[in-house]
Amino acid sequence: MEASKRIEQALVTSLERCDVAACPPALRAALRHAVFPGGARVRPRLCLAVAHACGDDDPALADAGAAGLELLHCASLVHDDLPCFDDAATRRGRPSVHRAFGERIAVLAGDALIVMAFECVARASSESPSRAAGVLSTLARAAGAPAGLAAGQAWECEAEVAVDRYHRQKTGSLFAAATAAGAQCAGADPAPWRTFGEHLGEAYQVADDIRDVADDPEILGKPTGQDVLNGCPSDAIPGCAGQGQLRALVQLESIRLIPKGIARRAA
Amino acid sequence: MEASKRIEQALVTSLERCDVAACPPALRAALRHAVFPGGARVRPRLCLAVAHACGDDDPALADAGAAGLELLHCASLVHDDLPCFDDAATRRGRPSVHRAFGERIAVLAGDALIVMAFECVARASSESPSRAAGVLSTLARAAGAPAGLAAGQAWECEAEVAVDRYHRQKTGSLFAAATAAGAQCAGADPAPWRTFGEHLGEAYQVADDIRDVADDPEILGKPTGQDVLNGCPSDAIPGCAGQGQLRALVQLESIRLIPKGIARRAA
Repeated sequence: MEASKRIEQALVTSLERCDVAACPPALRAALRHAVFPGGARVRPRLCLAVAHACGDDDPALADAGAAGLELLHCASLVHDDLPCFDDAATRRGRPSVHRAFGERIAVLAGDALIVMAFECVARASSESPSRAAGVLSTLARAAGAPAGLAAGQAWECEAEVAVDRYHRQKTGSLFAAATAAGAQCAGADPAPWRTFGEHLGEAYQVADDIRDVADDPEILGKPTGQDVLNGCPSDAIPGCAGQGQLRALVQLESIRLIPKGIARRAA
Repeated sequence: MEASKRIEQALVTSLERCDVAACPPALRAALRHAVFPGGARVRPRLCLAVAHACGDDDPALADAGAAGLELLHCASLVHDDLPCFDDAATRRGRPSVHRAFGERIAVLAGDALIVMAFECVARASSESPSRAAGVLSTLARAAGAPAGLAAGQAWECEAEVAVDRYHRQKTGSLFAAATAAGAQCAGADPAPWRTFGEHLGEAYQVADDIRDVADDPEILGKPTGQDVLNGCPSDAIPGCAGQGQLRALVQLESIRLIPKGIARRAA
């Protein structure tokens, strides 16, 4: 099955467990709202691409790892949008979860999505429970403290922040987890893949920063984002059978991330 | 080692992982504030008591399971205390996490505690990864949606609520998880232990409701709490070598839960 179909199917399966009378209706609707329709699903696609490159001999675990990463990402968006943080009115062109369902349901939906991320990996562990334990540790490292998503967001509450540490935790951690978990799901050593993910996360962050200002060509003199994206990440892909396909994915993602204004001028 | 020492040690070990420069100082302090000093640690004690009754042949996993339960409980207290829910100024005689560290850190501390719960079990999985996967599923079922802590809390946002379902999810779920996980950590069938935990959770909830009104003897005519606590739970203990000790723990806990006014009149 195509990667994007596998990801959506794994997310649907996880969310369907809430389609029961025991689940409070507002929470159930908020969980769906937070996960569907998704954005680019970059992190789970990366996870499946690495799992594929490493042989993908336990696809059920890879699907669960990919879904887990996306659920953690969605949870962080729901909580980042809360009034006490960004107080975002919209997300992906629709009302944010707290605007649509209220602040209390938004807090609980984020909590439930974090739990669901770990649950879906734990439930897919029958084939290789020790691999699954490794994937769970990788997801936890990426999501919590001392250096995951929650920690990254918490640096916003500190007077002094090392910006690179902030970005590494807030954005890089899930990219590093995506590549590491992809390898772990296929029984491969996650260490070199983690490095690759860290590079990708860094590039993604720079590209994102550039996109924020790129609509004004005066602010930006040259296509730095393109430089970064065409630079280090592909070179960091560990040697493996699926190297070619992974390189293609990175290139495709680079194109998606390049601000349209910059692309037009570069063309 | 005594159960309470094992629990504190497991919690200390989990929290210590945040004593690094990479962790934002306010988040680190808030995590400690949320976990230490603890309350009665009822749920982890119950988990260890059941693990002991079932042989406790993987004590590292039992300690992790117990700590995981307590971390989930602490996370739910931090989020329940938030301004959008109870807006509690104090907790266990000290400022609540959001009063001491601000609302943003309180949201993130709750998130990080949920993650930490799963992380500490995943890290203790080397001896029996498939048991650990079972424990992780049990914790997830108790914490999230459709019928765990998050769901229980979310019923507060609904116009129509079945009160027994609300209590079963909000209080009962962690008790049922404590007994089920205790059995799983020792390689035993969790099903009969879950039933025992459900009974205990129900009794605990009734006792708690009674304590809320028991300071006024006019409101309450007879020691109902004592009746409930002396009733079903001990009878529900599955047959096992440690049955006597478990019965003693339930009795001890019953005494702790009986409102002092009622106890005085009953004496």
